[in-house]
Amino acid sequence: MMKRVGVLGGGSWGTALAILLSNNNHSVDIWIRDAKQKEHMVNFRENKKYLPGISIPENINVTDDLSQVIHNKDIIVLSIPSHGIRKVLNDSKKYFRNDQVIVNVAKGIENNTLLRISEIVHEILPDNPYAVLSGPSHAEEVAQNMPTTLVSASKEKAIAEYVQDIFMSPYFRVYTNPDVIGVELGGSLKNVIALGAGISDGLGYGDNTKAALMTRGIIEIARLGERMGANISTFSGLAGIGDLIVTCTSMHSRNRRAGILIGQGKSLQEAIESIGMVVEGIKTTKSAYALAKKYQVTMPITKEIYEVLYEGKNVKNSVINLMLRDKKHEMEDIIKNQIKE
Amino acid sequence: MMKRVGVLGGGSWGTALAILLSNNNHSVDIWIRDAKQKEHMVNFRENKKYLPGISIPENINVTDDLSQVIHNKDIIVLSIPSHGIRKVLNDSKKYFRNDQVIVNVAKGIENNTLLRISEIVHEILPDNPYAVLSGPSHAEEVAQNMPTTLVSASKEKAIAEYVQDIFMSPYFRVYTNPDVIGVELGGSLKNVIALGAGISDGLGYGDNTKAALMTRGIIEIARLGERMGANISTFSGLAGIGDLIVTCTSMHSRNRRAGILIGQGKSLQEAIESIGMVVEGIKTTKSAYALAKKYQVTMPITKEIYEVLYEGKNVKNSVINLMLRDKKHEMEDIIKNQIKE
Repeated sequence: MMKRVGVLGGGSWGTALAILLSNNNHSVDIWIRDAKQKEHMVNFRENKKYLPGISIPENINVTDDLSQVIHNKDIIVLSIPSHGIRKVLNDSKKYFRNDQVIVNVAKGIENNTLLRISEIVHEILPDNPYAVLSGPSHAEEVAQNMPTTLVSASKEKAIAEYVQDIFMSPYFRVYTNPDVIGVELGGSLKNVIALGAGISDGLGYGDNTKAALMTRGIIEIARLGERMGANISTFSGLAGIGDLIVTCTSMHSRNRRAGILIGQGKSLQEAIESIGMVVEGIKTTKSAYALAKKYQVTMPITKEIYEVLYEGKNVKNSVINLMLRDKKHEMEDIIKNQIKE
Repeated sequence: MMKRVGVLGGGSWGTALAILLSNNNHSVDIWIRDAKQKEHMVNFRENKKYLPGISIPENINVTDDLSQVIHNKDIIVLSIPSHGIRKVLNDSKKYFRNDQVIVNVAKGIENNTLLRISEIVHEILPDNPYAVLSGPSHAEEVAQNMPTTLVSASKEKAIAEYVQDIFMSPYFRVYTNPDVIGVELGGSLKNVIALGAGISDGLGYGDNTKAALMTRGIIEIARLGERMGANISTFSGLAGIGDLIVTCTSMHSRNRRAGILIGQGKSLQEAIESIGMVVEGIKTTKSAYALAKKYQVTMPITKEIYEVLYEGKNVKNSVINLMLRDKKHEMEDIIKNQIKE
């Protein structure tokens, strides 16, 4: 059944999802903050800066008016870098009805408050139903109808299924999951490991090293997640290891590309400037490091990456540090309550 | 402390491990079945066919005599394609003492019997201590001292640790794990998914699709493994998802390369001939399909790959079949006993 959808944010992901929803026969408005960019999109039906080469269907209404994109919609998709969400929601909360379903597709953890995006939304719009949509999904590939799978997570099963129905297409398969905490943490914290995978690539290490970082990386994320109330199995799913894999192995990933530059000896500032888009993992590393301290969870990979990014640690020593730690029993680290011995 | 090690098998992995063990100051003999290949290795100190460009230290004794490689050794490393192991062990069992530690590094499941390699070894050498060494570890990278991590699994903790001590180096980090079943299944069954990942690449699909196949693939492997008595958390570790990642994303992987050729429209026979080395996953697919039936576990990805390889199913329909299955709740498929709701 046709729904009215407002997409907040015209980056590559917001644009790709607006096109998908329009192809699914929903009525779609998309909000672009930047007036010049909006003008270009209206005139040329292309998001030249973030999703070049993909044409935007005529029936998507492009606007820079917050009230218009929210007014009278069934669903609002939040596709805004995590550190912009609070401001946009504060600016627009007067336009919301409290029965509008919020679907967040951004990833990150607020630095000062250590809040997940669902918690920020809940502070500002406490009554609106909420779901997060996450998984291995580069926008560039979704826009080309490459088969893609995601997870729709909500505390309310009916909302998770409602979102599933709206997004599902022959190329876009959506699973539901009740674990909002796990899905949000998986999507956010994998960007830290992606920086590490990029660093390993930039240092000239091989696939063995990167696979080790990814595997040990998701294990430490799961350990933190479990402490924070997530379901540990979420990290074995699409929004956990699935998203980590795609982010760590694809050149579409800005986080990985930033890591490669750092591994090659560039400074953090040079890497950020070279990418030219938001690199969520850089801020997320700070939050992840703080969360590990707060919840007293050992996260050796996160700690090394934090020290490289923020404390000027020599990047060459980082991987070696991780390799030379004490010999370990693999299971100690994974899931204590599952050891069968 | 220096140990005497015999390595059975002179493929790329056996050769790389012989060099590693020699660098760790152990005394190493390596057995090469083919007399001509052995002669070449003795004369040129290089395994030109399987590990070109890597020089073999002078103190590694290269032999084609089974009794010599086994006689008086502390440890025997089995690095033989899974379908050759039974014959080699039957031919050589008269040379074994029952206190020699067997370390298997091969991956596969015997087609007719559906036995894991530990079970084959146990049939022929029932009293020898046994460990399996497995993880994300392309031989070519280990031979170049790229940082690599593995798991040493044995039912006896002391044996797992003994093997850990012998192999551990600054570039080769070994974890222990008591779950032999899980480590053997993870290492074997990932080759089936690697064929699928290659097929997806060969069809021109993107990183999103491959990450989905890998994530859903390890979930179905874990589901089978749990039914067969493995610890499900092993599949979240180095010998599970770790090895799967490296096999599905690297061009070093013969299984993935065979899949790419099949995805591009080559026949199974053409793909096998083009690779020119054993492609374990092709036989393993048959075993995996039979195991899924035997244990009544749903393995949709394994089933599709089986039908493509052995029943002439059109490969283009396979991925779409997987995408169009009924909408699902992610957790149903993962770990039933971990759902918190």
